[in-house]
Amino acid sequence: MKIVCIGSGNVGTHMANAFKENEADIVQVWSKDPANAAALAFETGAQAIADLEDIDLNADLYLIAVKDDAIAKLVRALKAVNGLVVHTSGATDMNVLSGIKNYGVFYPLQTFSKEEPIDFIHVPLCLEANSAENLSALRLIAVKLSPLIYEVNSEKRKILHLAGVFACNFVNHMYRLSQQIVEKQGLDFEILRPLIMETAVKAQNALPEDVQTGPAARNDKQTILKHEELLQKLPHLLEIYKILSNSIKKTR
Amino acid sequence: MKIVCIGSGNVGTHMANAFKENEADIVQVWSKDPANAAALAFETGAQAIADLEDIDLNADLYLIAVKDDAIAKLVRALKAVNGLVVHTSGATDMNVLSGIKNYGVFYPLQTFSKEEPIDFIHVPLCLEANSAENLSALRLIAVKLSPLIYEVNSEKRKILHLAGVFACNFVNHMYRLSQQIVEKQGLDFEILRPLIMETAVKAQNALPEDVQTGPAARNDKQTILKHEELLQKLPHLLEIYKILSNSIKKTR
Repeated sequence: MKIVCIGSGNVGTHMANAFKENEADIVQVWSKDPANAAALAFETGAQAIADLEDIDLNADLYLIAVKDDAIAKLVRALKAVNGLVVHTSGATDMNVLSGIKNYGVFYPLQTFSKEEPIDFIHVPLCLEANSAENLSALRLIAVKLSPLIYEVNSEKRKILHLAGVFACNFVNHMYRLSQQIVEKQGLDFEILRPLIMETAVKAQNALPEDVQTGPAARNDKQTILKHEELLQKLPHLLEIYKILSNSIKKTR
Repeated sequence: MKIVCIGSGNVGTHMANAFKENEADIVQVWSKDPANAAALAFETGAQAIADLEDIDLNADLYLIAVKDDAIAKLVRALKAVNGLVVHTSGATDMNVLSGIKNYGVFYPLQTFSKEEPIDFIHVPLCLEANSAENLSALRLIAVKLSPLIYEVNSEKRKILHLAGVFACNFVNHMYRLSQQIVEKQGLDFEILRPLIMETAVKAQNALPEDVQTGPAARNDKQTILKHEELLQKLPHLLEIYKILSNSIKKTR
């Protein structure tokens, strides 16, 4: 299978490498940043291209992994290709690609950082395509990477992307605030890591609503007051503490 | 080693069972709820007692695992005992036990639900005692359960407890809100589980501030606006979305 990778950020890098490990040929890499394209091209044995006019028209898959608002601008350059063109965005409608012959969405519902290795066996792939035939083709490509294949239309994909912000970005921000709290007192974030892990492990087996613990869930007013006192000098965290404690109480 | 367990909730139950598995004798269990005490006593081969006047004066360890505001009331009943008396609370000063001969704190920094099994190898134990001798004794007891032993005074323990609310209780609440978002659209929470796991795994190796992803971290205003639109019918979640997105931007 011949793949052209358009974009070389977190998502493009991890996906190109995962495909390569599964014996696909990454034939070209394009990025608006030529140095970035060159780096990923070198890593995957591809050709780096600086101009989309030089794109190989006969690849099997064109993987768009650029910023959401840059996707539409690529359509003109991809009109002439023969393979399947997919974007990887959670928040962007599939129709942004209409005008291309064969197109779809290949959305990995996962968090990617360049430095952190990732095993695609744990990456849910949300697929959508402009025809049943293209969806089948996309499914055959996807199963090479992950057993977690979901058929999701654009509306539902946007909902998953939004839910992902709560389940990942806001969660990591909570970790970050807890880091701030302990480091301010000369304590090491390391001591919180097992708690973070166990909280995630619980959510693998149970539903979050069934395993909520803590002072707000118990409505332990005395502890909540003590915590609010400890946060007097961090008003920004105090505000978040109050809002989230109230939200937990509300959803009991 | 002979242990008396005072309290039979989430923490008492898991700790008594963990000690039993490590060949300690749970000799007595007391709880304000006699049925609960009887259940844990049966599970651990202990005697259930309904009256603290019947307490065995010669155990090695008295483990207090009751609600925070009930700890102080136990002091009178425990004045005559010869062993080491510890409470397991994160938010309560050690001095609540002063008046007893040998006392301290044995705080497991972890989230416990009765139904979920827990491996104490992953439970950080925060220790404090009223003398160097008692601290040594407590350390010898603690290493039987977990290699994660920390010496933490009452002030710092309260900070850890507060940080734990962010790193666990608020995190689980974020999971819960994401559950609400997907279920409202007929999607299964299951699809978010790998993302939840990966977010926690990242925090095991990196610092949260170094791996923050998402639209707020990228200051991707278009996506944030789209998300806010999707949340119009969930004003409670919209408020939280805005506050946390702003907080992420602020801490960049």
